[in-house]
Amino acid sequence: MGLEVLAMDQKGYRRGSFQSSTSDEDMLEIAGASLDFPMADDDPPLDREMGGFSSYNGGEMNGTSKMMDFLEEPLPGVGTYEDFNTIDWVREKSRDRDRHREITSRSKESTWALIHSVSDAFSGWLLMLFIGLLAGSLAGLIDISAHWMTDLKEGVCLAGFWFNHEHCCWKSNTTFTDRDKCPEWKSWSQLIIGHGEGAFAYILNYLMYVIWALLFSLLAVLLVKGFAPYACGSGIPEIKTILSGFIIRGYLGKWTLIIKTITLVLAVSSGLSLGKEGPLVHVACCCGNTLCHLFTKYRKNEAKRREVLSAAAAAGVSVAFGAPIGGVLFSLEEVSYYFPLKTLWRSFFAALVAAFTLRSINPFGNSRLVLFYVEFHMPWHLLELVPFVLLGIFGGLWGAFFIRSNIAWCRRRKTTKLGKYPVLEVFVVTAITAILAFPNEYTRMSTSELISELFNDCGILDSSKLCEYVNDFNSTKGDDLPDRAAGPGVYTAMWQLALALVMKVFITIFTFGMKVPSGLFIPSMAVGAIAGRLLGVAMEQLAFYHHDWVIFSGWCSQGADCITPGLYAMVGAAACLGGVTRMTVSLVVIMFELTGGLEYIVPLMAAAMTSKWMADAIGREGIYDAHIRLNGYPFLEAKEEFSHKTLAMDVMRPRRNDPPLTVITQDSMTVEDVETIINETTYSGYPVVVSRESQRLVGFVLRRDLIISIENARKKQDGIVSTSIIYFTDHSPPLPPSFPSMLKLRSILDLSPFTVTDQTPMEIVVDIFRKLGLRQCLVTHNGKLLGIITKKDVLKHIAQLANQDPDSILFN
Amino acid sequence: MGLEVLAMDQKGYRRGSFQSSTSDEDMLEIAGASLDFPMADDDPPLDREMGGFSSYNGGEMNGTSKMMDFLEEPLPGVGTYEDFNTIDWVREKSRDRDRHREITSRSKESTWALIHSVSDAFSGWLLMLFIGLLAGSLAGLIDISAHWMTDLKEGVCLAGFWFNHEHCCWKSNTTFTDRDKCPEWKSWSQLIIGHGEGAFAYILNYLMYVIWALLFSLLAVLLVKGFAPYACGSGIPEIKTILSGFIIRGYLGKWTLIIKTITLVLAVSSGLSLGKEGPLVHVACCCGNTLCHLFTKYRKNEAKRREVLSAAAAAGVSVAFGAPIGGVLFSLEEVSYYFPLKTLWRSFFAALVAAFTLRSINPFGNSRLVLFYVEFHMPWHLLELVPFVLLGIFGGLWGAFFIRSNIAWCRRRKTTKLGKYPVLEVFVVTAITAILAFPNEYTRMSTSELISELFNDCGILDSSKLCEYVNDFNSTKGDDLPDRAAGPGVYTAMWQLALALVMKVFITIFTFGMKVPSGLFIPSMAVGAIAGRLLGVAMEQLAFYHHDWVIFSGWCSQGADCITPGLYAMVGAAACLGGVTRMTVSLVVIMFELTGGLEYIVPLMAAAMTSKWMADAIGREGIYDAHIRLNGYPFLEAKEEFSHKTLAMDVMRPRRNDPPLTVITQDSMTVEDVETIINETTYSGYPVVVSRESQRLVGFVLRRDLIISIENARKKQDGIVSTSIIYFTDHSPPLPPSFPSMLKLRSILDLSPFTVTDQTPMEIVVDIFRKLGLRQCLVTHNGKLLGIITKKDVLKHIAQLANQDPDSILFN
Repeated sequence: MGLEVLAMDQKGYRRGSFQSSTSDEDMLEIAGASLDFPMADDDPPLDREMGGFSSYNGGEMNGTSKMMDFLEEPLPGVGTYEDFNTIDWVREKSRDRDRHREITSRSKESTWALIHSVSDAFSGWLLMLFIGLLAGSLAGLIDISAHWMTDLKEGVCLAGFWFNHEHCCWKSNTTFTDRDKCPEWKSWSQLIIGHGEGAFAYILNYLMYVIWALLFSLLAVLLVKGFAPYACGSGIPEIKTILSGFIIRGYLGKWTLIIKTITLVLAVSSGLSLGKEGPLVHVACCCGNTLCHLFTKYRKNEAKRREVLSAAAAAGVSVAFGAPIGGVLFSLEEVSYYFPLKTLWRSFFAALVAAFTLRSINPFGNSRLVLFYVEFHMPWHLLELVPFVLLGIFGGLWGAFFIRSNIAWCRRRKTTKLGKYPVLEVFVVTAITAILAFPNEYTRMSTSELISELFNDCGILDSSKLCEYVNDFNSTKGDDLPDRAAGPGVYTAMWQLALALVMKVFITIFTFGMKVPSGLFIPSMAVGAIAGRLLGVAMEQLAFYHHDWVIFSGWCSQGADCITPGLYAMVGAAACLGGVTRMTVSLVVIMFELTGGLEYIVPLMAAAMTSKWMADAIGREGIYDAHIRLNGYPFLEAKEEFSHKTLAMDVMRPRRNDPPLTVITQDSMTVEDVETIINETTYSGYPVVVSRESQRLVGFVLRRDLIISIENARKKQDGIVSTSIIYFTDHSPPLPPSFPSMLKLRSILDLSPFTVTDQTPMEIVVDIFRKLGLRQCLVTHNGKLLGIITKKDVLKHIAQLANQDPDSILFN
Repeated sequence: MGLEVLAMDQKGYRRGSFQSSTSDEDMLEIAGASLDFPMADDDPPLDREMGGFSSYNGGEMNGTSKMMDFLEEPLPGVGTYEDFNTIDWVREKSRDRDRHREITSRSKESTWALIHSVSDAFSGWLLMLFIGLLAGSLAGLIDISAHWMTDLKEGVCLAGFWFNHEHCCWKSNTTFTDRDKCPEWKSWSQLIIGHGEGAFAYILNYLMYVIWALLFSLLAVLLVKGFAPYACGSGIPEIKTILSGFIIRGYLGKWTLIIKTITLVLAVSSGLSLGKEGPLVHVACCCGNTLCHLFTKYRKNEAKRREVLSAAAAAGVSVAFGAPIGGVLFSLEEVSYYFPLKTLWRSFFAALVAAFTLRSINPFGNSRLVLFYVEFHMPWHLLELVPFVLLGIFGGLWGAFFIRSNIAWCRRRKTTKLGKYPVLEVFVVTAITAILAFPNEYTRMSTSELISELFNDCGILDSSKLCEYVNDFNSTKGDDLPDRAAGPGVYTAMWQLALALVMKVFITIFTFGMKVPSGLFIPSMAVGAIAGRLLGVAMEQLAFYHHDWVIFSGWCSQGADCITPGLYAMVGAAACLGGVTRMTVSLVVIMFELTGGLEYIVPLMAAAMTSKWMADAIGREGIYDAHIRLNGYPFLEAKEEFSHKTLAMDVMRPRRNDPPLTVITQDSMTVEDVETIINETTYSGYPVVVSRESQRLVGFVLRRDLIISIENARKKQDGIVSTSIIYFTDHSPPLPPSFPSMLKLRSILDLSPFTVTDQTPMEIVVDIFRKLGLRQCLVTHNGKLLGIITKKDVLKHIAQLANQDPDSILFN
């Protein structure tokens, strides 16, 4: 197969936008060399990219081989990457350091430069502030709209159609016992046939519910399909890939931002089994990416921009749950790849600003920061760890089951005709969801409302069915309610919840992966919360009726409040979320921020740990990693240890029986020789060696730089003909005048390519690729160049060792 | 100066305990080769280290050059490092992966091996559990003892001398208005002269206070001096260095643990201006290190052990403040070097176990997890950010001032005779502290009590002087107290606090660095809390008397509770702590965990940010980094960017005009040649090249391996004489029978040494050293070996560029 340097993009691979770790100066000269360079017609991508500055006046260019030192700013297009390519972290970081060095050294020269230097230093903070404000505002907007549109499925407010149900009744002046009932709020049947009772009214409401749901979801899928195909799904797998250094142009663009924000509201309102949390991370990252364009520092540097995106992801989770610390830890643990400590601090800032912006918008109307505010009054007992661990096991099993089924379904969608009809798919799934959801109170309400209710610890005044206990007010002291016998409402709620559980479990598998924005957090949490509440109520009744059992002795006497079913719901939610996403610390911290009590960390941790172990025992990958693999993104997992005993020589190209590596010699090849190599091969770069015989490595040169430099020299430099010799050496030998002029190209040579020996274990090579963010690495043996390993080779090798199809990597 | 491979240890450098990244197999063979190997008399360190297994029966050893494959377990002593050496992270991680691979592959063979594999996987968690339990228990013990001994300076409890003041009065059956007054508690004057009033009683109490203080501190310094010199100071700079891969034997040993625990109690009780928080981290790390000996996995692998230590540090902070999340972030942000995500989760577990162990011991008697539990009732106003930022500026200034003065004083101690009299120094400082502290109520009480009181929001029933306001109960509604005019008590408190501030500011400079355990968190927080409270009360009075001012209009009308002086104290504490340590996220999270209200994160963050910026503008280093530099520890800072434009060739040895690098050729040197090189040079390792002329690198061989292998071959292998040729090649040429036997040493050759080219920018080299944890890196030019860069060279180079003395690095 020969050498392939990251020829990932099938359209643009020939020209190789790949750049090795050349220093900034080299880049400038390349830029200079390419001015007024006429593009070959058969090379449209390059043409397109370079078109931006083809009108630049190159008149000042001198004809010597030392090109264009006078240019200080890199030209547009230079130093950027093609779509679906991997960035070179080393080079990007190098470039930023150079930039920073220049600004610092200039800052001593003038006041203006000093101000520039200071403003440059603070631009990161300013950007974080903007991201926080924008992400917080968008999250508020989404919350309010989704709330209103969800209620629109059931009815409308006469006092103003823009009020949602709660708001409408809250505005109402009449006293009301049930917060849900007020004269201003009219269900569709009341509005159309004048009354809300009876079978016909029920059917009418049912019909309206289904119609609205279909309307919302179809609008969502059409918008996604028509305007921003990247706006579908949760976006977290792709964001992980992007943060690891991959380029997916437009994935975090303005259009995606706008369409995802709108369609997220529609998708959530349609009552599908999906959440807004994952997509909010995507929305926040889009904000981050869009705002990066305000600052040169971040616009032009892919590595710096990824720092900003990490912070934006933190802000996204922060507003999704009202958990800034949890958001930062989520970004650190789950999403980010390169996360220096400076970023940690800034992420925290962004997350905080976002959370407080959201709070000042106050979409939940309760001045609470968090999505599910819970306050528990009773401590838990050590013995309760047993049911908590059981919930953990359930969560792990559900997580593993969900991942398997969902991946199997998504693979089917990719490979069969099913994938061709996304609108129909959404229509069918929405119709089934709506038809099944309406009759059951707990599926009809929005999933976040359901979770809220399940987490809730029943007070005396709670009127919901879940709190319909047989009251025994004699034994009530203050706020603490003792365990009581369940009333008929609780029993009804139990079987309704059980049905809801079954429905959620199955419908979510088919929902996640459709062409609408869809998050997993809320459905997973709902499954866990239902299971937890069921177990909690069961435990409570057990404790009430059998408080003489030995397991309850000592801590649960008659009339005591021992079991808090809401806590069980919460633990169950954490367990299921952990099973699906395999989050650990961030999960526990997010849940901790919901309750605010350190007390409850231990149950949460026990459940999260059990759930992770359980799920890992069945399948190693979390849902995001599974989707990354399904889509073949080139993601080099930083968490998994590479544990095989292969060596660099087993992975490098060329393989044992392949023709030798294509190299360029430093001082003996003519222009024609090099052009032949360029035309006959498709590699993005070539190693330069002292001589073919010695194979001693001098450096690495990029295909694109070579093409540009040679063409430029042929046009501008006198005496460059096909027989001119190209020199990559520092000093060229004095030539007799009869010889054609020589072409000196040392300036485009990367003199510090990374090398390893052929005997280096692959575990070390993988470590180097991961930690330094390399794109390729040369392989030597006894000082002689032997071959090359690219990131693609590494990923293919890992896939091969895991018995997967190595060709599935990098977009299929 | 020539080549020096990490010759850090002046005693042991000749033999070079340095090991490059040889694989485990190599190590085994070396071990085999060294059996029954008689040590040269002039090589005592090696002798000592190898002595442990000199009685091992080497009879089964065969005489071929392929040595001892039958050994499966590495022998004791092999693979360990000498004191004051740097570990090779790559090799350690490699070894652990090999170990893990072997256990995994064996687990399929038998049930027993499977159990071993599972128990190996869970041993990390078990270890974390033990660390949490031990660290929590020790922290509880320290808290209780310190509390009791602090009160012992003032008096004794008649109901039982083991009760502290609070406990004593709490046990008392009499009703009491002031919690401090009860008949069972007798001050020394009451006990000795029968009453507690009058000048004589005061003087007697004063005297007893000073005597106890001197007694405690002298005992502490004598114990430290006599039994565990490493137990002094906070320990955090050294732990940072150790975690970065340095070996300081005994620093985390059993003796240090015991002595530090005891002397910490003594030092805290003596009333010196120091805290227990930093030393608690050291104590927790000692626990971690000691407990590592229970598990082979951690005992034998320096990299794995450092993962455990990172978690232990988190547990230490967790128990110091009752802030498990803050503890983990502190470990991540401030202490750790290599912190994989798996460690994050385990650290969190350890921190949580530790916190809950401490809580179940309940040393503060209030069932609270946190050290300073605070509950504020009022939100803050946006305008209050101005005083908060002012506190930030104060904190930054104080931090920078403290670091400068403390480092200047410590340098004086190191360089002058002062350092020779640690006991006298402690005596004098304690005497001054005690004499100055007693008359002022706020310095007499323990610093943590002081902070607690300053953080406190005054309630109606608070009887402390700080809450002596002119009451106006007409305007009181419920719990909320409006701003009131300050009473005489507050005014007295104000000037006493001002005096306390001045005293703390100066005495702390001289205290930190003495030969007793001393933490900085508490004194720094005290300074900030005093300043904050002063500002808070001033603001409060301003708002009370001038609520008609425009700045108060709209949010602070008459009779409203606008200003919470306790919050100011808290913000001030965060600012000062931030200025001294330059912590960011972890600081805010720790403070957040104290209050539990997300509300107050914003003021804390504003102050922490301002303080860090302010302090950074004056001096880049935090106190820990400054002490690392003062002591010359070889710590490669991961946070600071290397921003100079030097190249690898500027740093490598040999320098331009030095004699060339000492190398060994792969197939042309005789045993005698190699022995000459070994005797004439002191390097710990030698590059092996194809030939002297070509200088093409083959691998890297360690001095120690060479010595052992040659000696062994001379004894065991027939025909090895001084003229035998040493082969490092894979296949040796067939030799005529007249030649002496050859010695094949390929097995001890590291075939994958790290290389960079001479043109590689140092910023990339530094990045490689940091991220991969290298000990040395070879430098090539056009495939020829040119020189070598060791971690020491890198550190010296960085020091040189920072205009510091490069020779100060690595213990002076």
